[in-house]
Parts: sequence; C-alpha cells; structure tokens
Amino acid sequence: MMHRLRSYMPILYWGRTYDSSAFSNDLIAAVIVTIMLIPQSLAYALLAGLPPEAGIYTSIAPIVLYAIFGTSRALAVGPVAVVSLLTASAIGQVAEAGTAGYAIAALTLAFLSGGFLVVLGVLRLGFLANFLSHPVIAGFITASGILIATSQLKHILGVSAHGHTMPEMLGSLLVHLGDINWITVLIGVCAAGFLFWVRGNLKPLLKRLGTGPLLTDFLSKGGPVVAVVATTVAVWAFGLADQGVKIVGDVPQSLPPLTVPGLSFDLLGALLVPAILISIIGFVESVSVAQTLAAKKRQRIDPDQELIGLGAANLGAAFTGGFPVTGGFSRSVVNYDAGAETPAAGIFTAIGLAIAAIALTPLVYFLPNATLAATIIVAVLSLVDFSILWKTWAYSRADFTAVVATILLTLGLGVEVGVAAGVAISILLHLYKTSRPHVAEVGLVPGTQHFRNIHRHDVETSDSVVTLRVDESLYFVNARFLEDLIQTRVTQGCAIRHVVLMFSAVNEVDYSALESLEAINARLTDMGVGLHLSEVKGPVMDRLKRSHLIHELNGKVFLSQFDAWDQLSNREVSQAAE
Amino acid sequence: MMHRLRSYMPILYWGRTYDSSAFSNDLIAAVIVTIMLIPQSLAYALLAGLPPEAGIYTSIAPIVLYAIFGTSRALAVGPVAVVSLLTASAIGQVAEAGTAGYAIAALTLAFLSGGFLVVLGVLRLGFLANFLSHPVIAGFITASGILIATSQLKHILGVSAHGHTMPEMLGSLLVHLGDINWITVLIGVCAAGFLFWVRGNLKPLLKRLGTGPLLTDFLSKGGPVVAVVATTVAVWAFGLADQGVKIVGDVPQSLPPLTVPGLSFDLLGALLVPAILISIIGFVESVSVAQTLAAKKRQRIDPDQELIGLGAANLGAAFTGGFPVTGGFSRSVVNYDAGAETPAAGIFTAIGLAIAAIALTPLVYFLPNATLAATIIVAVLSLVDFSILWKTWAYSRADFTAVVATILLTLGLGVEVGVAAGVAISILLHLYKTSRPHVAEVGLVPGTQHFRNIHRHDVETSDSVVTLRVDESLYFVNARFLEDLIQTRVTQGCAIRHVVLMFSAVNEVDYSALESLEAINARLTDMGVGLHLSEVKGPVMDRLKRSHLIHELNGKVFLSQFDAWDQLSNREVSQAAE
Repeated sequence: MMHRLRSYMPILYWGRTYDSSAFSNDLIAAVIVTIMLIPQSLAYALLAGLPPEAGIYTSIAPIVLYAIFGTSRALAVGPVAVVSLLTASAIGQVAEAGTAGYAIAALTLAFLSGGFLVVLGVLRLGFLANFLSHPVIAGFITASGILIATSQLKHILGVSAHGHTMPEMLGSLLVHLGDINWITVLIGVCAAGFLFWVRGNLKPLLKRLGTGPLLTDFLSKGGPVVAVVATTVAVWAFGLADQGVKIVGDVPQSLPPLTVPGLSFDLLGALLVPAILISIIGFVESVSVAQTLAAKKRQRIDPDQELIGLGAANLGAAFTGGFPVTGGFSRSVVNYDAGAETPAAGIFTAIGLAIAAIALTPLVYFLPNATLAATIIVAVLSLVDFSILWKTWAYSRADFTAVVATILLTLGLGVEVGVAAGVAISILLHLYKTSRPHVAEVGLVPGTQHFRNIHRHDVETSDSVVTLRVDESLYFVNARFLEDLIQTRVTQGCAIRHVVLMFSAVNEVDYSALESLEAINARLTDMGVGLHLSEVKGPVMDRLKRSHLIHELNGKVFLSQFDAWDQLSNREVSQAAE
Repeated sequence: MMHRLRSYMPILYWGRTYDSSAFSNDLIAAVIVTIMLIPQSLAYALLAGLPPEAGIYTSIAPIVLYAIFGTSRALAVGPVAVVSLLTASAIGQVAEAGTAGYAIAALTLAFLSGGFLVVLGVLRLGFLANFLSHPVIAGFITASGILIATSQLKHILGVSAHGHTMPEMLGSLLVHLGDINWITVLIGVCAAGFLFWVRGNLKPLLKRLGTGPLLTDFLSKGGPVVAVVATTVAVWAFGLADQGVKIVGDVPQSLPPLTVPGLSFDLLGALLVPAILISIIGFVESVSVAQTLAAKKRQRIDPDQELIGLGAANLGAAFTGGFPVTGGFSRSVVNYDAGAETPAAGIFTAIGLAIAAIALTPLVYFLPNATLAATIIVAVLSLVDFSILWKTWAYSRADFTAVVATILLTLGLGVEVGVAAGVAISILLHLYKTSRPHVAEVGLVPGTQHFRNIHRHDVETSDSVVTLRVDESLYFVNARFLEDLIQTRVTQGCAIRHVVLMFSAVNEVDYSALESLEAINARLTDMGVGLHLSEVKGPVMDRLKRSHLIHELNGKVFLSQFDAWDQLSNREVSQAAE
C-alpha cells in the first residue's frame, strides 16, 4: 500500500532524506528562478490573452503540485510560450479576449488538459506521445516561435491586431499600420535590444570581469527584471501612459483565488480537442527536458508518472485562476544550473511568487506591454531553428516532407492544423513505405552461412531455389503486394522448383497477410513449386502455429536460411544426379 | 503510342483476335446474365431509393464502358447491394427520397466516384485500397448484408419506414407496425421462400432429373424471373394494388437518357467523402472478384487499369441516369460459369438490357415491391458470414478487435462510420503493436553461425557481449522505447563491454530513430560500453551512411552477426588471457 502510494507521490521518497545541504542549494536555485519567472509569468499571460495576474497565479499551485507528483528533480513547471500560444488559439475560438468567458475558458482548458493527462497516466498510455516524431516536433516548435514573435509585434508597435495564423496576423498588422505609437516602438525596440545583448554578451563579459559564478547567474537571469524596472520607471517618470503607451495597469494584490472551471457541455465539447493537443505537446516538450536533465545526473524519470505530475499541475491551474502549464525548457535549465537538487526548489519558487503576488503587483502598474512583448520575442526566437530542414533533407525525404508540411501548415493555418497534419503525414508516409516493402533476392555469401542480396554482394545462387528476404512485417497494407511479387518472380524462371521466404525481417503476420500466404501456397502448389519459410521468429511462429497455413504448407519451415539452402539445393543436386 | 493507348484500352488487345467461337460463348453467357440482371437491377434501384428504371439504365452504359477499359474478362459491372446501400445512405443525407434532387444527387455521387477512381488509376494509386484489411472488409460486408436485409423488411411488411442504422430502422419499423399490409406480407414471404428454395434445392433437383447443364443454369438463374412473373400476374389478376399492395407502377419505355450530374459546390462538398468511400469499397470488392476469376484461368488483371475501368463505368452511370456501380460478385460468377470469354459478353448483356428497357418495362407495372425486396434479402443474406469472428479470434486479437468494431459500428452508426472506424482501428492497432517492439536477446546456436533468442533456444552467450535483435523497424513511434530498453539492460549487468544491435529485422531507421541511436551511442560511450551494429540491410545502410551516426559510432558495423560475435567475444577472451 505504502509502496503504491509512493509510486504515485514521489515526494514521499525524496522527502524522507531531505537535509540542510539540499535545502540551501534548492533555496538559491529558487531565488534565481523566481527572479526570472516574475516577468515571464506576466508576459505569457499577455501571450495567452489573459490579465497579467493569471500568469503569476499559474506559476504557484501548479509548481507545488508538480513537486508532489512529478518525478523530475529539476523540471520547472509553469506557463510556457508554445502552450500559451495554443491556449490563446483555442480559447480565442470560444470567447472574446478580455471577457469573463475568456478567463473561464482558460480554466476549463487547463481542467480538461489536466484531466486528460491524469487519465493517460493512470492508464499508462504515455507512449501515445511517441506519435509526435522528432522532426514534426522540431518543425512545430520553430513555426510556433515565429508565430509567437509575430503575435507580439502588435505590442511593440502599439497597435491593436488579431489573428492566429501568419496571414491573419500580418494582414491585421498592415491594416493598423497607421496607428503606430512611436514611443511604444522606442520602448519595445530598446528593451528587445537590451535583452538580446544580455542573452548574447553579458555572461562572457561578466566572466572576463572576473565576477563569481553565482553573481554572474543572478545578473544574467536578471536581464528581464532590469528591462522591466527601467521601462516602468521611464513610463512613470515621463507620464508616457498619457502618450498612448499601453501599460499593465491595476493588478490585484492577492494570493491565487479559488476558481471553478466552466463545465457546460458546449464549452467542454469545444475545448476537448485543443486540450488533448495541448496536453500531448506540453507532455512531449516537458518529458524531453526532464529526460535530458535526468540523464546528466544518471537519474530516471517515469514518463507515466510525469503524466500524473503534469496533470495535477494543470488541475491546480484550473482551480486557482490559471491556464494550461507544462515543464519549460529555459526555466528548467536555469533551475538545474543554479543547483536545484529536489522538487523542493519548486516549492520555494512558488513561495517566492506568492510573496510577489501579494507585495510586488502594485509596482508593475506602469510596466509597458511592449517590454513584456520584447521579453517574449527574445525568449521564443531561440526556439526558431531551421536546421531540422537540411538535416532531414539529407537523411530522409519522408521526414523532410513531414517537417515542411508541419511548418507551412502551422504558419498558414494555425497551430492545431499544423501539428495534426504533421502527425497524420508522418503516419501516412510510414504506412506508404511499408505498403511497398523492399524484397531482396538473396544468395549464400561464400565461406559463411550468411545470406545477402544477390545484387549487392557476390553470392552463390541456384536456378531451382529462389530465396526472397521480405524486408517488412506482413500486414494488411502490403498483403497483396507479396502475392503479386511472388507470382511475377515465379513466372519468370521455368526452372524454379522451390521458393523460400526468409522471414528474418518479418516481425508480424496479421490475418490479412496470413490469407495472402495461404493464397500464395495454393497457387504455388498448383504450379508444382514448393513454398518454404526460414528464420521465422518465435512470436510469429507461435501465431502461425494456430493457423491452417503451417499444416497446409506444401514445403517446410526451416530454423535457419542455411538449413533451407543446404537441404533444398542438395536435394536438387542429388535428384539431378539420379 | 499505340502501345500506350492499348494499355489504357484493353479492348484493343482482345478485340483483334475475337472469333466466332468466342462470340457464341459470350452470347450464351450474356443471355443468362441478362435474365438475372433484370429483376436485380430493379431491386437495387429500390434499395438505393431510386425509381426502378434507374437500375436498368445503370446496367447499360457502365457495362459497355467497363468492357472497353477494364482488364477482367469475366467481371460483370452494375448496381450491387453494398454500393446501393452506401448510395442510399449518402444521398439520403442531402435530399429527400423520391425528389428530383435525390436522383441528381445519385448522378453526382456516381460522377465523383468515377472521377476519383480515374484519378487514382492514372496516378497508379491502387495500393490505397490495401488500407482496408481483409477482416475489416469481411466484417463490413457481413454487417452491410444485415443492414440491407433489415432495410427491405419495410417492403415485405408493406409499411413506410426509414433510417440507415439498425436502431433507426428497427425503431421506425416498430412505430409503423400497426400499418402492416398482410397481402404484401404474403407475397413477400412466398417470394422469399421460393427464392431460398431455388437457391438451395433447385440445382441438385434438376441434376437428379437429368437436365442438361445449360438448361439447369437457365432455370436456376431464372428463379427471380419466375417470382417476378408469378407475383406480377397475381397482383394484376386479383387487383391487389387496390388492396394496398405497393407496386412498381409506370416505368418509362426508353433507352438510358442523357443526364448531367449536379455540380453545385455544396453538393460536391457534401458527397465527396461518401464518394471516396464508395469508390474504395467498390474497387476492393470488384478487384477481389476479378482476381479470383482471373487466377482460375491464369490470366492477370491490372489493379491500376481496373480503377480506370470502374471509373469510366461510374462516369457512364453519371451521364445516363444511373447511380454508382461496381463489379458484382454473384453476376460475375454467373457470367464466368456460363462461359463468357471476353468483355464482349458484357456488351451483349448491355444490348439485352437496352431491349428490356424499351420493350419490357410496361410488363412490370404490377410487379409488387415486396418481390423485389425478397430478391434483395435472399441475395444479401449469402453475404452474411460471421466465421471471420472466430477465425480472427483464434489467430490475432488485434484483427478480431477491428472486425468486431467494424460490425458493431456499421450496424449501430451506419456504413460510413463503420468502415472508417474499421480502417482507423486497424491502423492504430498496427501502430500500437510496432510502438512496443519485440526485442530478443540472442545467442549462437551451437555448431552453426545462426543466432536465436536465448529464452527459446539452447544457445551460447557471453557475459561481456550482449546482442539484441530488434524485431521492428525503428521509427518515431518506437524510437524512445529502444533508448529505455538498452539503458535498462546495460545497467543490469556490470560485466557488459559491448552491445550489438542485430538489425536483421530493422527495415527502416527514420530520422527520429536516428536521433535515438545517436543518444544511445553517446550514453554508452559515457559508460565505456561499445555499441555495434550487425546485419544492417543495404537500403538501411545506404541511408545511415549519410548521417553522423556511422562516423560517431564508438563500435563497428559487422556484415553478419557471426562476424560480430567472433571478433567481439574473441577479443574479450584474448584480453582476458593477457
């Protein structure tokens, strides 16, 4: 019982051995992450189309819940760019931004997403995330980065624009181009320039100046805070809000409120598919970060328990005024680099953010939205990486096709269509490839018992024995293909007495393929040609034994291809000698 | 040029060698098929919800067009039960039965279906039909047979009812149960009983009586005609139409009219998906009949050209007042058994039906619908065959699941949902199976160079060399699986110095799997363990050579597993001896 409980609540493991050394390391990491998260939380709320306090709330309860249920020791959970974009796109379809319905839709989305993740976790269905191939994810993240950066341009330009796809957003920006507020542009461009400089040049500079590593970390992660403070002060001092610079304004001073997601049938129905999409993309992103960090310390994470951890975090967001969350890449790396040893670092971060929510919110009244937009743009442009295009082009045209389709469709038709098309295209291309399997005619490599393709290697062959190595599992998609292929091959050579199907690469024979094999056997029997199988794997043989095929087979099943060759070609030789 | 034209118009081949012997054989077959087709055509028009003449028209132009473009010498094209049911279901969603819009929708459906088939054929995409697995087709045909028989009960009972799923149809029948016309029931039950008797008992009886085979054929195929004539005469003689027995009524005396399908964007959009479904199901059914019959005479059919032949037939139906057609099983078998030698038999059948359309239509005025319904019920009940359930249960639970889902969803939610779900479930189950591949740890079978599973065979193994035979292509769905598996296996044994991945069953390594292999290589390098590959197939190796993996691999790629074993375990032995 206790064991079972612990497997669902990893905190019960590491909590028992928690000591003061771990405590001080966790605390330092938490301070650094908190400083980084305050502007990020506000910015991602802006990206999701929600009031700024929602970003802070979203970073408190979810972090604590993940610390209890999650298995990664370094993962930092909260609002992240791609999931915030997906949130904006999903709830933008059911409610107007800025309305109460919009905030409730965000809660509902987090609730559905959390519920779905928990269900997947309890049913141990984490493997579903594998349906997103690496190239599709890479293409999707890159396209999302571009979409997000574009979506923030309106804040930098100080115009109102809308849309969830590139054509919509660019068109809307062009229409409003006359309304540009140049003071806002100045603030946004300066903030972005400063943040790019901090990201690229500050750390090397501090190192050259001989600053200690901890201080370097504080200073370089503090870049956004400096930008926030400087632009806020500027807006306040020069009264820029009266010049049309949009500011954050009133943010309630409060701990996260207790909220209830909207549970109307219509709302749940409309948000179900986006919630599933958000869950899976968030999970995949989070798990790869967690796995990368765990591998560095030879720790293990349990993907199915991660589903429960992330699910709990999202449910937490749903009941405390938040929106969907997942494990973020940059904040987790910062957490890890800053020395976090256990999920307690997350709990301390949550405490830090709770203090900020109560004490610091009045200070961001004059914070310009353009600064937050600059923070987002600088963060997401690091996600944009087109190298996957030439990497896949060089290696596999099928993967390349999937990447290109994902990128173009994400940019052109939106995130949901893009990722769904990426998954569908990957699967269809895989099925297409397996529908026309490679079949090699093989012969004996002289001096060995090894058989290889007659067109690639110098091998011994026989006129009367044809050996075909089928390089694919046999299942409905390619069942008929093999029938045609054998028919064609056998009618080519009149001397053929035996056909051996070498099954070393056949990992499955489904019912459709079984019927095809029976048809092949019947046809070859009519033609006086023997049909033999060799190197049939255990699991395949177990199943074939339950069918008629093995009894009706006019030839034999050989353990190894060499046995088959030895017996069949020798038999021919001795018959010829008679 | 001529060769190319001939490959698209097979009539140019067989037409040149046509002689009088073939002519007389074809003519006899045509007469038998025509007698069989007259009541069948009327009945399938009734099933599709169209006026009876549409059935006759649908059997004329399409047959001629298939004779020109098709490759099967025995296939008889026309309205068939399952496609008529699909037609009724599809056009019932866009128009009311009996209206002009309904007939136009049928033309449009045939037009779309024909166009789709021709496009598939020209693009040589016939393999798409393989996505329907044998068990899914078997389940679908069985469920359709039940649906069709149920849909005809209203004609036997003489009530009006509607619906395209079992619950709808049964509910509707129950509601109208009070309106039963007992004279209609009497006619329907007698006709059905007679037809069942003809099907089961007439042929053996005639044989015992010593009737010649040709006459036996005429008489047994003429069963429906006898039922038609007898019940028509009865209705006329006793004035039963005034007693509420529904009759066929006026049928225009005319050759097929020239018609134009409706081409409004809405109509095309609404019928596109059903048209694709009808095309693929019709094609699969037709091709399997054609292949079966061709194999008996060692002839070949070309599936891609078949697409064009069936496509032309459907386009013909669209422009001559018809509805979607395909190659029918029973009529093709009759045609074949009656001695048809070339597609000219089809052309003669079309001439026979054209004569019937002009001369015989007044004679069916008093034909009761109940007789036609009885014809349909007797024909389709032979399609119902549940044996696929236990056959797949014994062989493969995945196939069984797909069959059960197809049957239940077809009966419960309709033909379109049923077949789509069948395809989707087959694909998902396949992906699921490949997502958790079988991986065997293998050792050397003593006295051979053959390696097999250590748990199934008595084999030689080594503590320092672990050989894993991965029984699946490596692609995105299972890429992470292998990472976890190797990690787990290597941390189990401290003496492990080399891991050999035996790639004999790996038919593809996609980009996601490549990244996983690179990660595995990096991790094993850190642990001081060598990673080697053996028996990598040509096509897989060609691609791997274009990647970084081969250069970065800390071990070697061996041609055969025996080479790998020989070198790696000997090296260990010699190192131990030093």
